[in-house]
Amino acid sequence: VARSFADRLIQRTRALGHPLCAGLDPHLGLLPPLFRHGAMRPGAPETAEVVERFCLAALDRFAGRVAVVKPQVAFFESLGWPGLRTLARVLEAAHQRDLLVVLDAKRGDIGSTAGAYAAAYLGAEAPLRVDAVTLNVYMGGDSLEPWVKAAEAADAGLFVLVRTSNPGAADLQDLPVDGIPLFERVAGLLAPFAGRLAGGETGWSSLGAVLGATWPDQAHAVRERLPRSLFLVPGYGAQGAAAAEALAGFVPGPGGRLEGGLVSSSRGLLFPPGSDTEDASAWERAIDQALDRAAGELGEALG
Amino acid sequence: VARSFADRLIQRTRALGHPLCAGLDPHLGLLPPLFRHGAMRPGAPETAEVVERFCLAALDRFAGRVAVVKPQVAFFESLGWPGLRTLARVLEAAHQRDLLVVLDAKRGDIGSTAGAYAAAYLGAEAPLRVDAVTLNVYMGGDSLEPWVKAAEAADAGLFVLVRTSNPGAADLQDLPVDGIPLFERVAGLLAPFAGRLAGGETGWSSLGAVLGATWPDQAHAVRERLPRSLFLVPGYGAQGAAAAEALAGFVPGPGGRLEGGLVSSSRGLLFPPGSDTEDASAWERAIDQALDRAAGELGEALG
Repeated sequence: VARSFADRLIQRTRALGHPLCAGLDPHLGLLPPLFRHGAMRPGAPETAEVVERFCLAALDRFAGRVAVVKPQVAFFESLGWPGLRTLARVLEAAHQRDLLVVLDAKRGDIGSTAGAYAAAYLGAEAPLRVDAVTLNVYMGGDSLEPWVKAAEAADAGLFVLVRTSNPGAADLQDLPVDGIPLFERVAGLLAPFAGRLAGGETGWSSLGAVLGATWPDQAHAVRERLPRSLFLVPGYGAQGAAAAEALAGFVPGPGGRLEGGLVSSSRGLLFPPGSDTEDASAWERAIDQALDRAAGELGEALG
Repeated sequence: VARSFADRLIQRTRALGHPLCAGLDPHLGLLPPLFRHGAMRPGAPETAEVVERFCLAALDRFAGRVAVVKPQVAFFESLGWPGLRTLARVLEAAHQRDLLVVLDAKRGDIGSTAGAYAAAYLGAEAPLRVDAVTLNVYMGGDSLEPWVKAAEAADAGLFVLVRTSNPGAADLQDLPVDGIPLFERVAGLLAPFAGRLAGGETGWSSLGAVLGATWPDQAHAVRERLPRSLFLVPGYGAQGAAAAEALAGFVPGPGGRLEGGLVSSSRGLLFPPGSDTEDASAWERAIDQALDRAAGELGEALG
């Protein structure tokens, strides 16, 4: 019997001793000289191949060091169809390296359209198969239904945007609805779906929430409404959140160590100091050091 | 000097005498026998080619009959990278046929990620170039900024989800914020962006709103907050909205005829009665009749 996404994720983060998730955001403009080649024109297949070599080299560093890698689909989509072909190869390479993949897609649509998106990403037949995907639920609970069905069938996971960490997040997410911020209402809307995707060995649900790292009070409020949902906390490192803050929504697991989600860092791991080099060994050292440091900080903060 | 997206759209709908937009949602399971071929497996390049032939045949029917075609990216994405290659060819074919293209993508992200999405779709260098794109603003006003800059530079358009027509839309969009439904707050958030993308010959803004066809009162409320934004009204035909209801947010233009947006139909135009056939002429007749009927109804309702 296949294990649920939540069980796979929790068992791996327990084994590694930290919840670090490596973002894979291959900004064309930030690629180190080691990888750059030619004119780097979006839409050109050669450019997508450069991005592919960079991503595969990064996956070699991530393998065995993190449980989960989180590619941001926008950076592949911006390269046109060759970018999506590169993404397919990167996903395959991640699976081969035994990394779980959360695709940062933030999709949100209804009915058969949501079903078409789910068919792209979830399940053995999906051409861009991943373990979990991020979603936007502004269109309402029925926009989640096709995803939840697909996730149930594929033992996959879903992370729905609840409270993000960008300055503009307050524009809508914090608006008071009968005295309660909108994002808490969103968390409440997700609760029944989280229940449907719960029930594995660890008790964690495969319906999780995306929750910015910068507001610990908000993490506690969401945790009350979604007690068994994994939190995906982006913005660690480069965006400045400290380890204790990033773990605000985590809860004690077996042995008392905190668990309950992923803490994601993108630029801090992919473009750290010392990585802007032509030297392959120096590049590998820079990435490894950034990974070890972030993993160490988070592992220590788990208690 | 290039004209704004809003000017291009309004001038074409005035010339045609109706605001009908043809949705291009190539559901694999609904393709007529005329086009079906082989196993139709998502991810297989042959399947994407079947979809391509179907879409190009549909564009031949749409050309000269509607101002705008609206491909739903999910149905291409669900075919993997061959699907995105097909989408690129379909977009090129639409431009060649002098059809404006609004890509139904509902993207929503922040900072450099939003910039990467915009680079995929807006501007002369974009590998998947379209005239306008649909967006989701749950992440806040700053998630729009890169899109607005790209739209200004490319004379492109943006349609942001405000109030959708699915049953679950009420879950969040209608929640009361200080007595005002959330979707009206969203419309208010968009107003300054709409101002920045206004100012062409027609006075209409290239920052528009997606507004379901089923609730005319809501259209009036949004029109008050966004007096010069084009409305993209999906759900005409198959989803049951009548012409008068779909045009509730439109306002009198030159000569008194209503204008101010697009009314979109997808299944009703793409899979109408009589189109499920192996006969090419019968298929063309069925599509043409559906187009003429919808265009006629809407044109009449403009007054």
